[in-house]
Amino acid sequence: MINITFPDGAVRQYEKGINALAIAKSISEGLARKIIAADINGQIWDATRPINNDATIKLYSWDDKEGKSTFWHSSAHLMAEAVESLFPGVKFWVGPPVENGFYYDMDLGDRKMTEEDLATLEKKMNELAKQNNNYIRKEIPKAEAIEYFTNKGDEYKLDLLQNLNDGEISFYSQGNFTDLCRGPHIPSTGIIKAIKLTNIAGAYWKGDEKNKMLTRVYGITFPSQKELDAYLQMLEEAKKRDHRKLGKELGIYTMDDDVGPGLIMWMPNGTIIIEELEKLAKETESEAGYKRVVTPHIAKESMYLTSGHLPYYADSMYPPMEMDGEKYYMKAMNCPHHHKIFAAEPKSYRDLPYRIAEYGTVYRYEQSGELFGLMRVRCLHMNDAHIYCTRAQFEDEFRAVNEMYQKYFKIFGIDKYVMRLSLHSPDKLGKKYVNNPELWKETEEMVRQVLISSKIPYVEVKDEAAFYGPKIDVQIYSVIGREFTLATNQVDFSQGLSFKLHYTTADNNTETPLIIHRAPLGTHERFIGFLLEHYAGKFPTWLAPVQVKVLPISDKFLDYAKTVQNKLKKADIRAEVDDRNEKIGKKIRETELQKVPYMLVVGEKEMNEEKVAIRRQGKGDTGTKSVDEFIAEISLEIKERRAEGGL
Amino acid sequence: MINITFPDGAVRQYEKGINALAIAKSISEGLARKIIAADINGQIWDATRPINNDATIKLYSWDDKEGKSTFWHSSAHLMAEAVESLFPGVKFWVGPPVENGFYYDMDLGDRKMTEEDLATLEKKMNELAKQNNNYIRKEIPKAEAIEYFTNKGDEYKLDLLQNLNDGEISFYSQGNFTDLCRGPHIPSTGIIKAIKLTNIAGAYWKGDEKNKMLTRVYGITFPSQKELDAYLQMLEEAKKRDHRKLGKELGIYTMDDDVGPGLIMWMPNGTIIIEELEKLAKETESEAGYKRVVTPHIAKESMYLTSGHLPYYADSMYPPMEMDGEKYYMKAMNCPHHHKIFAAEPKSYRDLPYRIAEYGTVYRYEQSGELFGLMRVRCLHMNDAHIYCTRAQFEDEFRAVNEMYQKYFKIFGIDKYVMRLSLHSPDKLGKKYVNNPELWKETEEMVRQVLISSKIPYVEVKDEAAFYGPKIDVQIYSVIGREFTLATNQVDFSQGLSFKLHYTTADNNTETPLIIHRAPLGTHERFIGFLLEHYAGKFPTWLAPVQVKVLPISDKFLDYAKTVQNKLKKADIRAEVDDRNEKIGKKIRETELQKVPYMLVVGEKEMNEEKVAIRRQGKGDTGTKSVDEFIAEISLEIKERRAEGGL
Repeated sequence: MINITFPDGAVRQYEKGINALAIAKSISEGLARKIIAADINGQIWDATRPINNDATIKLYSWDDKEGKSTFWHSSAHLMAEAVESLFPGVKFWVGPPVENGFYYDMDLGDRKMTEEDLATLEKKMNELAKQNNNYIRKEIPKAEAIEYFTNKGDEYKLDLLQNLNDGEISFYSQGNFTDLCRGPHIPSTGIIKAIKLTNIAGAYWKGDEKNKMLTRVYGITFPSQKELDAYLQMLEEAKKRDHRKLGKELGIYTMDDDVGPGLIMWMPNGTIIIEELEKLAKETESEAGYKRVVTPHIAKESMYLTSGHLPYYADSMYPPMEMDGEKYYMKAMNCPHHHKIFAAEPKSYRDLPYRIAEYGTVYRYEQSGELFGLMRVRCLHMNDAHIYCTRAQFEDEFRAVNEMYQKYFKIFGIDKYVMRLSLHSPDKLGKKYVNNPELWKETEEMVRQVLISSKIPYVEVKDEAAFYGPKIDVQIYSVIGREFTLATNQVDFSQGLSFKLHYTTADNNTETPLIIHRAPLGTHERFIGFLLEHYAGKFPTWLAPVQVKVLPISDKFLDYAKTVQNKLKKADIRAEVDDRNEKIGKKIRETELQKVPYMLVVGEKEMNEEKVAIRRQGKGDTGTKSVDEFIAEISLEIKERRAEGGL
Repeated sequence: MINITFPDGAVRQYEKGINALAIAKSISEGLARKIIAADINGQIWDATRPINNDATIKLYSWDDKEGKSTFWHSSAHLMAEAVESLFPGVKFWVGPPVENGFYYDMDLGDRKMTEEDLATLEKKMNELAKQNNNYIRKEIPKAEAIEYFTNKGDEYKLDLLQNLNDGEISFYSQGNFTDLCRGPHIPSTGIIKAIKLTNIAGAYWKGDEKNKMLTRVYGITFPSQKELDAYLQMLEEAKKRDHRKLGKELGIYTMDDDVGPGLIMWMPNGTIIIEELEKLAKETESEAGYKRVVTPHIAKESMYLTSGHLPYYADSMYPPMEMDGEKYYMKAMNCPHHHKIFAAEPKSYRDLPYRIAEYGTVYRYEQSGELFGLMRVRCLHMNDAHIYCTRAQFEDEFRAVNEMYQKYFKIFGIDKYVMRLSLHSPDKLGKKYVNNPELWKETEEMVRQVLISSKIPYVEVKDEAAFYGPKIDVQIYSVIGREFTLATNQVDFSQGLSFKLHYTTADNNTETPLIIHRAPLGTHERFIGFLLEHYAGKFPTWLAPVQVKVLPISDKFLDYAKTVQNKLKKADIRAEVDDRNEKIGKKIRETELQKVPYMLVVGEKEMNEEKVAIRRQGKGDTGTKSVDEFIAEISLEIKERRAEGGL
């Protein structure tokens, strides 16, 4: 018998050689049906792989990231089997799962894969899936593996084998297909219920353009047709909501070759959104007792040597400028400058918690191939802040930060989010992590307790903490279900020491503060990119660049339209008049396209009665009101930052 | 007879050989008494130098910059005469006028100058001034000049002579002193009525530390004792108001060796002032129809080649960063980025005037020796904007900008200011200035007319325009009379062409817009430096980092003090509580030092009656009021941005 320890600490005994699937069955049939893979002693295993020693176990289903990636990896094998049946003699390179689905790189010789082939392949895959073939693992000596692929004439797998050690090589087979593979895989093909091959692309072997161009086929699979349909619909919707398309149409941002790639220039409409976000953050932070600071965008090399950014983070920083015999770097983070501000005046326990915030602009080097719209840029505006506090204050401060995140989520109508609590790994203390096991234990437990007591959905991830302490990565989902990594909330018990920060305690001793790094709105760039998709460009009124457009039915009512506009402007409402000599129908259609929340149509009747006929974006005519009444209503909507828009 | 043309265009005839002093006398004795030097055909001359040909003339008195610098240059000679009488055998290097006064560098051999010597020298100078000796110019052949200084054994003047051409060498003598000098000088020593030698310093010969250290004596002189007294008092006051001292005491800004020289970090109190200034500018600009943009701090070399910043302005820019085979520069100006935003979307005449503003941060290289507090820095935050307009719109736009300056001056209690209208020089068209004589004439006249019709005090200066058009430099005076160059307002008819900017006219043609560059608040750095001196750190309430400090008489009233604070905070008033267990007298004294505009003292009586006892900074007790009454009053003061403070 062996002891199996479950995540909740419960221990059960099983026969040696049992597998995760059988363990799941021992709990319930329902659970077993959902099990795709398992974590056995910290490694992801096939659910069907025999367990021969005492072990910790964690079961993975489709709902887990690990479950999905196993599912898609097995789907890549299934696709390979289908390809081999249609293109005999095809040779395969690698076929990994990716963020959404999988791909396989293959050498088709002189043949070419077409869009029509994809349909045939999908059909074949469905057929093979229905056969419900098991994925079978076989550990194999290196010599035997080499012999197998030499006989097959497959130079690609032989190349892979070169880098593998004897004793750690395995084959996986399902149906008529066998592959060199580390695994793990799903129990059998039958659980792959819905298949979509999405794309054919070229990919140089090993990513080197001097090598042969292989064929890469992308696909995605699901455990039900319903999920595939939802995914395809989401893709369709995401295309309409593409932030690059909307960003251009709505005059949000632009880029220019003479400025440089990844360097966003915010147009007037985008700047309004930035300023509204800043205003929100300033209000929120002022209420929460933050002070604000402004720091330069550069600093000397010595500062980044102290912070440890150099040399470790150098690849992500802009190259230095040499001046007066010194090297200056553009800042990639605001923390070192903030630490200097903390240190600029002596601090006592009475000054703590000391919370300083800045709309800091940082510069990070990203490969030009990685740049993507507002999502991956080189210049990032961050709603950044650092909190310096005592250990006794830490829990309250950390909780308050998490609550601030949730407050923002509510404002922006973000209903789905997950926090990832990234922990250290004890065996890497002193290497990847600051060597202070007690503070790790203490802060991780504090952070965990905050999450639990605040009832925040979270997952724990080992060995992903920052160098200087545990952190929380916040993942949010747009209204169409796409995931965005937004921001982090980090504990830091190391940089205070590096920068020799200290405060005088009540009993006149000297202590180093704990530091919380936080940026709940992430970067303007990514957040506005997210909002463009989330709202489909139909921003809620408080964020909309133009909040009201006044549309005179003809030139005769232009003066009245301008009177209305002036009244709106006086009430701090962003209003424009469509003063073109165009038909009212055209004006309405075009203003709809500009996604302006409110249109006020004014003609004879409205002018005489000092009223406006109101059309709400996407809702059409909503009745006629006096100008003052309309102003009162919209002002309240703006003040409350109501999260309507394109949700 | 020769023809003398006066600035107003009037022409008078005089005997050949007449001088400026005699010409002044021909107008009035009073005028003649004031004349120090003159501009003859564009060169500054002695008022006593004979004029032998037709000439244009402009007379300079003490009130002119040129008058002052001549006065101080002559004072340096007077000091040299005094030094020579006290230190026989002294050798002189150079003795120029400076911003406030003059200095002379001298080699005293083995002797040393002491503070006591300065008093003796002042006495001697007064004696020599009373002799009212004339300054006599003598043109002299180079060989004779060399012979003179060889006989004197003066290697310094011989060194100077090396770089002078025969035919352009002159000596000036007064009393017993003769110097190699280009001039000009005042007519005689008698008009130097008040003398103060201020400082002794060391200065390496030719500024090279490998050379001998010379003795530099600084001084300043005036045409009356009253003016000297006022100057010394101003200096005394300026010392108290030193922005570096106040900046540190009030927690406005800090600098750090690891960040770098000239790179200001704005502390929480300074950031509040920045944000209030920004808020003011945003309000003002929004009302005036500006839109806002945000642009990155860097751009590729190609952009600055187009703008012409490279290579001409390269010395004032930070060195490049080399990345992906391209050179990137930190921006020294915002204009090129703004031009790119103008160009990002097609423009028609309906979009003009297109006004875009940004709180842009620019980086300029200044020699580290030139850096000075907030006045000379390397990182500058600018309230910058560019207006793109048609020629027909230009005058109104330019006037509106000037009116915006004046609006700001009023808010900040700046009663004294001068605008310097810098014009081109026709003989430098195509070299120093864009070669478009008609546009120069047209825009200069438009600018002049705006100044005249707006009744703005201004002076015209030739040959100081920007490359691309005429400009106005704005000089303001702090309440203690010190001059600050604040900002510029520039016309630009060149960069629009360089950047190929255009708009579609009403008749469907393509035109290049005129551009106005403007930054009425200058840089945050210099403006806040100015305000610190101007207000002596006693900011008006709307700008004060802490607006109200609540002082409980004892701990018993702490809760009530906090209730008052919360009420104030809810009304957006920046309020703190002095919760220390200290005597009320000490609390009041310390809050006075922190220059907080209002103190609210609360004790038994105030708590029971829900009132506060109000002390206004610098004015003491001003009575007791209900909290709400106080809030109503201070809120109005803040809203109206009343310019009280330390004026």
